[in-house]
Amino acid sequence: MAYELYYWPDIQGRGEFVRLALEEAAAEYIDVARQPARQGGGMAAMMTLLEEGASGRVSFAPPFLKDGDFLIGQTANILLYLGSKLGLAPRDEAGRLWAHQLQLTVADLVVEVHDTHHPISVNLYYDDQKKEAKKRAREFIDSRLPKFLGYFEQVHAANPRRGDFMVGSKLSYVDLSIFQVIEGLRYAFPRAMQKQEPDYPRLVELHDRVQERPNIAAYLASERRLPFSEEGIFRHYPELER
Amino acid sequence: MAYELYYWPDIQGRGEFVRLALEEAAAEYIDVARQPARQGGGMAAMMTLLEEGASGRVSFAPPFLKDGDFLIGQTANILLYLGSKLGLAPRDEAGRLWAHQLQLTVADLVVEVHDTHHPISVNLYYDDQKKEAKKRAREFIDSRLPKFLGYFEQVHAANPRRGDFMVGSKLSYVDLSIFQVIEGLRYAFPRAMQKQEPDYPRLVELHDRVQERPNIAAYLASERRLPFSEEGIFRHYPELER
Repeated sequence: MAYELYYWPDIQGRGEFVRLALEEAAAEYIDVARQPARQGGGMAAMMTLLEEGASGRVSFAPPFLKDGDFLIGQTANILLYLGSKLGLAPRDEAGRLWAHQLQLTVADLVVEVHDTHHPISVNLYYDDQKKEAKKRAREFIDSRLPKFLGYFEQVHAANPRRGDFMVGSKLSYVDLSIFQVIEGLRYAFPRAMQKQEPDYPRLVELHDRVQERPNIAAYLASERRLPFSEEGIFRHYPELER
Repeated sequence: MAYELYYWPDIQGRGEFVRLALEEAAAEYIDVARQPARQGGGMAAMMTLLEEGASGRVSFAPPFLKDGDFLIGQTANILLYLGSKLGLAPRDEAGRLWAHQLQLTVADLVVEVHDTHHPISVNLYYDDQKKEAKKRAREFIDSRLPKFLGYFEQVHAANPRRGDFMVGSKLSYVDLSIFQVIEGLRYAFPRAMQKQEPDYPRLVELHDRVQERPNIAAYLASERRLPFSEEGIFRHYPELER
């Protein structure tokens, strides 16, 4: 049975980390909110499940994944589950927890990226918190961005199975997520990334290798890959870069 | 062998969610950074492991847990691991993922609580971002706090094993975390909580029951329980409440 992914239909957002894993593994899946309502899809289908849950289990927010009787929310948790199913995570417990730890750190970075354009409230427009956004974005670019990318670069360098991956000697969902992070950061902060990227050669190489994987390349060229936009997490507001 | 918990020695912070699980289970553990340096503890011991990691695995930030060869970072990930070890999580996969999903949502709430006093940068003092903090705290109290507590109340009510717990029919680390969240919110936002708590009777009852559990009560009365303070995540700045 096909996996059912529930996420906002018009943005990459957090759902994209899940889409990349499903696409790399060539898993059969339905991106439910992007299907026509007459086929049981659309926003209404997502909102119903979001509000009612299943077997008493309700998610706080999309994305969530339905796999038969399983209904799983929280991006990193979905990847923890799919990682085993799709062969995109180490099989041993220590490795599985390590990959998950890195994904949770990606999630922390994603929150901070989001807050560069919404430092005060998700309920206010960007224009209503632009002044604060400029301050937060400056701090992010100068301090947090190098801290996170420096950390991931260090992790890659310290992988004892020296090679091409963040974890162990095989591709994992962490590699796909690092690709997405680099893509998103380049979109949101092109000037900062142009300046900082030379400090993280391993991540840039990893990004390029992921991009060239046949299933990922096919996905990126397809209509299934939504464009970045000023509705998502990674937004390009030129005034947020100095 | 005793678990080794590595966390900042002077605050509850994120480490407290792990301490509560270890205490409830009466697990043998060492709070390493709070031990004397001459016994191999202290901040130096923590910083060494934070910077060097083990087997190529480095954490982005405390807390992290050492259990023999395992070195595990990210609070929710530590609890995922300990939940199975200490009998503080469901045994079936779906239940385990569900408990973890809730813990990740607790983690999201904790980030938002932290950002009420640090909306612009962790590198700036509170006083240097007080104006923005007031705005963010107002949004948090009026909008985000009820959204999160309403969600957890709904989850409790929807637990098909009707009873006293967030997940299934037994105490889990999620219950301990809800206790800590209510404690922290009462400390940080006493006026807002006084007003809002009547809307969340199940969470308040759960908090009270956790507080009375013998191991938790003994812990809270001990010197091992650090006080809340304006160095941690839950901080009481009266000006942030209207």
